[in-house]
Amino acid sequence: MPVNLSAPIASKLLAVPGVELAVAQAGIRKANRHDLLLLWLAPGSSVAGVFTRNRFCAAPVTVCREHLRNGSGIRALVVNTGNANAGTGALGLANARATCASLALQLGIGAEQVLPFSTGVIMEQLPMERLLKGLPDVAASRGSANWLDAATAIMTTDTLPKAASRVVSIGGESVTLTGIAKGAGMIRPNMATMLGFIATDARVSQHVLDALLGRATDASFNAITVDGDTSTNDSFVAIATGQSRAPAITGINTPDGKLFARALTDLSIELAQAIVRDGEGATKFITVRVEGGATVEECRKVAYAIGHSPLVKTAFFASDPNLGRILAAVGYAGIDDLDQAGIDLYLDDVLVAKNGGRDADYREEDGQRVMRQAEITVRVLLNRGAASTTLWTCDFSQEYVSINAAYRS
Amino acid sequence: MPVNLSAPIASKLLAVPGVELAVAQAGIRKANRHDLLLLWLAPGSSVAGVFTRNRFCAAPVTVCREHLRNGSGIRALVVNTGNANAGTGALGLANARATCASLALQLGIGAEQVLPFSTGVIMEQLPMERLLKGLPDVAASRGSANWLDAATAIMTTDTLPKAASRVVSIGGESVTLTGIAKGAGMIRPNMATMLGFIATDARVSQHVLDALLGRATDASFNAITVDGDTSTNDSFVAIATGQSRAPAITGINTPDGKLFARALTDLSIELAQAIVRDGEGATKFITVRVEGGATVEECRKVAYAIGHSPLVKTAFFASDPNLGRILAAVGYAGIDDLDQAGIDLYLDDVLVAKNGGRDADYREEDGQRVMRQAEITVRVLLNRGAASTTLWTCDFSQEYVSINAAYRS
Repeated sequence: MPVNLSAPIASKLLAVPGVELAVAQAGIRKANRHDLLLLWLAPGSSVAGVFTRNRFCAAPVTVCREHLRNGSGIRALVVNTGNANAGTGALGLANARATCASLALQLGIGAEQVLPFSTGVIMEQLPMERLLKGLPDVAASRGSANWLDAATAIMTTDTLPKAASRVVSIGGESVTLTGIAKGAGMIRPNMATMLGFIATDARVSQHVLDALLGRATDASFNAITVDGDTSTNDSFVAIATGQSRAPAITGINTPDGKLFARALTDLSIELAQAIVRDGEGATKFITVRVEGGATVEECRKVAYAIGHSPLVKTAFFASDPNLGRILAAVGYAGIDDLDQAGIDLYLDDVLVAKNGGRDADYREEDGQRVMRQAEITVRVLLNRGAASTTLWTCDFSQEYVSINAAYRS
Repeated sequence: MPVNLSAPIASKLLAVPGVELAVAQAGIRKANRHDLLLLWLAPGSSVAGVFTRNRFCAAPVTVCREHLRNGSGIRALVVNTGNANAGTGALGLANARATCASLALQLGIGAEQVLPFSTGVIMEQLPMERLLKGLPDVAASRGSANWLDAATAIMTTDTLPKAASRVVSIGGESVTLTGIAKGAGMIRPNMATMLGFIATDARVSQHVLDALLGRATDASFNAITVDGDTSTNDSFVAIATGQSRAPAITGINTPDGKLFARALTDLSIELAQAIVRDGEGATKFITVRVEGGATVEECRKVAYAIGHSPLVKTAFFASDPNLGRILAAVGYAGIDDLDQAGIDLYLDDVLVAKNGGRDADYREEDGQRVMRQAEITVRVLLNRGAASTTLWTCDFSQEYVSINAAYRS
């Protein structure tokens, strides 16, 4: 059951001038579902992408990196679900290239102008015959799907599609941003998460878009975890078609740049949080806030130690204020010179531990009250510096195990 | 259900001359169970200990370190279950010291000659009144309990007591080693695990015992994980009473030293593996073997990434050869210059992936056959050096969540 998340409403997702969508059924893993998505971009669109740092990155990630480096003008993004094309060796790479080549032929563009994305089971080869048969369908029907169709077509273990829009006024003209994302398990993005796409009609140069995307990623997809498993296919892509009449965004620190960056980051955070809210088996949405660290890096170590601890996550699931488990996770997070006597711990507004020990005024019923909520903030004060970080995660239920024990069946 | 583990038989656990045992019921958390253990040592015993690297170490760990540094001759070890005395601040430290002082009074020794150990719930103060009332019982009844009683008294979520013995011949005289351990969850030892004790009547100097213990720990308790949560109370202690008539062990590399070291390490491994076999909710015992690494450190990174991945562990639980999840874990283990094209993966004798992709001859039914076993070896060949490592872990079931969602109730 997703935590305070509902399906997006089609009419509230704004079309982005310069982006045409299409979906199709290729039967890659399951019949009778859309498992192919095409994003067809206007000429001159800027496209920026960040990808998984997993050394076992999927074949399409390798191809995306090549094609983005090429700089010959991306015109199409194609996404398949049901198969991740990861751990597939040289044949997997050839299949990703063949997908681009075949689609490019349909669209009358070069293969290097296509970015391929895959998500699904790992270490199985793509069913190329079925996939290639589906490509003419999406190529022919471009423009026929909306963003909700797109968000739905890329789902795997997601229980709900994830999509949102923003409008921001740049130089008196409105600019639209619409994004979609998918992912529920194997979520511990390191650069980006399992497939997120944001498109805008703003005019943004490649260089500026790269910088904006990096900043938005750090504040959103790089600040969530479900199970600590960094995916082989994490990809987050921003597209700027430049079709808006608003003036071009020429830098990240100009007034317009800041306005646009805020909208982009805000949208990225909403999508990233949606992934956590729909985390496999999740019943709680947990914000982990670590403050007073010497560096952001050490704050992140502490936040991830808490966010990944099966013991902490099962305590949240049980609504059990067994909060010593959080202190234990702080202790093993890897800060070698951490002084436990400096640590304070809050659960929402409740002071649980002061100076490394249970606070004298802490009452179990106060902890219990907060633990019963569907949304909880854990706040750890390290009291050794001015750095801080925020991580969003979920709890850990029997349902997570059931989902992942049955994933392929 | 523990994996291929049965309760030790009392008559097969050998008494260690120079060690007298006692257990008592102090009602620390639950009534009608032994929750206090005393090990009473002959004068002149060498005692070596390794402890958690968790910066939130428990109060008794701090006191143990102090008393061992003191070097005034340890004569008694006292263990309570039901409460870890961790995350308890200054009061917790005072309580650990009071425990030592009170017991020392009963035994006619100095407080600094007592090592205290605690295990159980974190961030609650010890019930000192009940604890102090129990101490005269164990002090008065020393010599009345056997090693099986001792192993049983220190259990928490363990389903079976863990104990074993070895006999080794040194200079024609037999030397006995008997050890006990406890732990099932919060198991990712970093130095040692949640309470392990090995006693021997061998004559071993403090210096040599320290070295032997370090070596045995690395090969045993530092090579297991259940859930990745490094405990606040991990303690592993070796005691050498010197009561055997065998010649003293004067170094770790002498013939006798090697013989003894082998027995000590072997016993440590049996106890460490027993903890994994009895891991919370475990249904499978998994050996992760990583070979061909550039350094042992990078092999350990890969082994732990596999051993901690909830996705890998749930696939083992389901007997589902969804083995791409193992490759994904290898990829995010943190070896920055890892070349996926160099990786081979075996499941027992079955070659699953070759050169980073699914092996052409791999058949799903072969993987399925191995996955159905109760004991499985995952072998990853990095093919970039000569270093290797072994890690023992277990799978991840709904039962783990249930146990830890209900731990305090």
